Amino acid sequence: MQKKFIVNPWEVKGDVDYDKLVKEFGVQPLSEELIKKIERKAGEMHLYLRRGLFFSHRDFDVIMEDYEKGKEFVLYTGRGPSGKTHLGHLIPWIFTAYLQEAFGSKLYFQMTDDEKFLMRDVGLDEAVGYSHDNALDVIAAGVDPRKTVIFSDVEYMKTIYRIALQVAKRVTFSTAKAVFGFTNSSNIGIIFFPAVQASPAFMAQMLEKRDVNCLIPCAIDQDPYWRIARDIAPLIGMPKPAGIYSKFLPGLRGVGGKMSASEEQTAVYTTDPPALARKKVMGAFTGGRATVAEQKERGGNPEVCVVHQWLYYMFEDDDKKLRKFWDECKQGKILCGECKKYLADRVCRFLEEHQKRREKAKKEVEKVMIKD
Amino acid sequence: MQKKFIVNPWEVKGDVDYDKLVKEFGVQPLSEELIKKIERKAGEMHLYLRRGLFFSHRDFDVIMEDYEKGKEFVLYTGRGPSGKTHLGHLIPWIFTAYLQEAFGSKLYFQMTDDEKFLMRDVGLDEAVGYSHDNALDVIAAGVDPRKTVIFSDVEYMKTIYRIALQVAKRVTFSTAKAVFGFTNSSNIGIIFFPAVQASPAFMAQMLEKRDVNCLIPCAIDQDPYWRIARDIAPLIGMPKPAGIYSKFLPGLRGVGGKMSASEEQTAVYTTDPPALARKKVMGAFTGGRATVAEQKERGGNPEVCVVHQWLYYMFEDDDKKLRKFWDECKQGKILCGECKKYLADRVCRFLEEHQKRREKAKKEVEKVMIKD
Repeated sequence: MQKKFIVNPWEVKGDVDYDKLVKEFGVQPLSEELIKKIERKAGEMHLYLRRGLFFSHRDFDVIMEDYEKGKEFVLYTGRGPSGKTHLGHLIPWIFTAYLQEAFGSKLYFQMTDDEKFLMRDVGLDEAVGYSHDNALDVIAAGVDPRKTVIFSDVEYMKTIYRIALQVAKRVTFSTAKAVFGFTNSSNIGIIFFPAVQASPAFMAQMLEKRDVNCLIPCAIDQDPYWRIARDIAPLIGMPKPAGIYSKFLPGLRGVGGKMSASEEQTAVYTTDPPALARKKVMGAFTGGRATVAEQKERGGNPEVCVVHQWLYYMFEDDDKKLRKFWDECKQGKILCGECKKYLADRVCRFLEEHQKRREKAKKEVEKVMIKD
Repeated sequence: MQKKFIVNPWEVKGDVDYDKLVKEFGVQPLSEELIKKIERKAGEMHLYLRRGLFFSHRDFDVIMEDYEKGKEFVLYTGRGPSGKTHLGHLIPWIFTAYLQEAFGSKLYFQMTDDEKFLMRDVGLDEAVGYSHDNALDVIAAGVDPRKTVIFSDVEYMKTIYRIALQVAKRVTFSTAKAVFGFTNSSNIGIIFFPAVQASPAFMAQMLEKRDVNCLIPCAIDQDPYWRIARDIAPLIGMPKPAGIYSKFLPGLRGVGGKMSASEEQTAVYTTDPPALARKKVMGAFTGGRATVAEQKERGGNPEVCVVHQWLYYMFEDDDKKLRKFWDECKQGKILCGECKKYLADRVCRFLEEHQKRREKAKKEVEKVMIKD
């Protein structure tokens, strides 16, 4: 049952066929061996790896080989701050924090408020405001403030521009068009933007003269940006950035696509009061049958159940418990309300913890955010 | 005798037919009435106006009407710093200084080192270096340092970018392509650049919240940039910038096209030792005949003579003297060597004065140049 799907950095629609994406983008699946390497260094295997939420990569094997020979790597990831942070956004950041702790890497975190201004109906100051707001969630996700710099493109553009010019000089409209699907109606700001987004991949080398690799943990839809950075890296004497890619956490109203920050009901925001989050989770799309009687007789469809996916990827670490939910659902022994309540409890507990860290982050954020 | 000619901000080739340019660009010739208005305000008519070196405009009449009603205007001009400054570059700056004194306007002067890096084989730091070097000539050209800000795009990009984003969001690739002739091989930096170059036209309003008009004195080939700025101005609540345009001072080796900074022998640089400048002028292309005998018998061709044009536009204020040179040339009464010597004396005197002011400018330049 394959549907048409679209994945580019501005759009993820339809049911995402990740196997097909891996093939189309030409990335590699994360091998057991690579996952083990991370585990050994980290001391524990992250749930996101074990459950395949992080599932593919580009040259992560090279980064690891270099690392074993003594060449460090920095981390780079980012956020398009067009609104509040939701749980889906947190996934790469939590994973980045895990990698940062395991490998002691410095993190460069880019807030692409310029991109959001150029592509959305959002004001420039509003977008910059979201950069500062969302930065609280980045810190709350667990990154090490002493080894992290977060910057808004708008506030750090003097520095970024010097690097972006090096990139932009070597990227033709043809190339940008082929990768991002630009048309004649694309605005000239967004046509330049791929150079801006590629730049942090070279910051450690260019600004700090460090001979390091760069690894980018992010959702799979961001891969095209790094293809530009990778293509021009050798032309400017830089190592090609590598990527490690996640799937999307589905929105509460269906398993296809990614959680949308603009559809209030499909997303749980990091700032939602737990009671509101609970209400949202209780309204989730599940694989339940039309009636209780039917559910008990025929069992549910956990395959299409958002609640199951959320537990699987993010909220239930215990394989046995998860298996039990699946089996009992199939057998009609458990009803959707019970699963939703279980998930809601987990989500609320997570939010409470996150919100505490988020509050604490308010004291640190202006130290972590760098400006020109 | 019309030849094919090309005029865009990156290229001026062949014999320039200014009448045709005025028609093609859709600009207006400078009327007697407008010239008189400037003269009344300035107290004297500038040679460049009297001799038609500044010859056309876009909405300068509107600027003047507004001015008479009490609405001030700021001045904006700039330079692509890819090398040393030559005499041709000085023309708009000298004229800008004249307008600045007459109208008391603040001047925003942009050094487009980013553009030069993107379009030429010049390093980024090298281009920024030329920004600072060329700024000495801007000051030496007579602008008022207390009412002037000069900035390098690379060094002031944080501020410029905020304005450029507003512009870029409203300019499609189609539009930029139509105006600048971009192709699929154009790099994505230069595609964005029109937004950068349009930005200073809105600085007074956006940064200082002043309700003023903006007038851009420059060579006619820069007009396309202001068309972009003019098109989007109403969309962002700004007045349309106006322009006042000059012809090009021809290079020493021929009257077609503009003086090229990259052809050492065709240009006199502001830093040339007078002896070198003299040598260059003595090698100028003239309308002289093959032999002295022929010249004396048939007379010369001042119509194609660079020396005559230089005297006409820049170095001989006295109409009678100029007329005498012309007539005596036609009649074979004067030989090219004499004219060249006369011009060389004038050029050397000009250089000596300019170089003194340039030296003095070294003390002021870092105060006039603003950075993020």
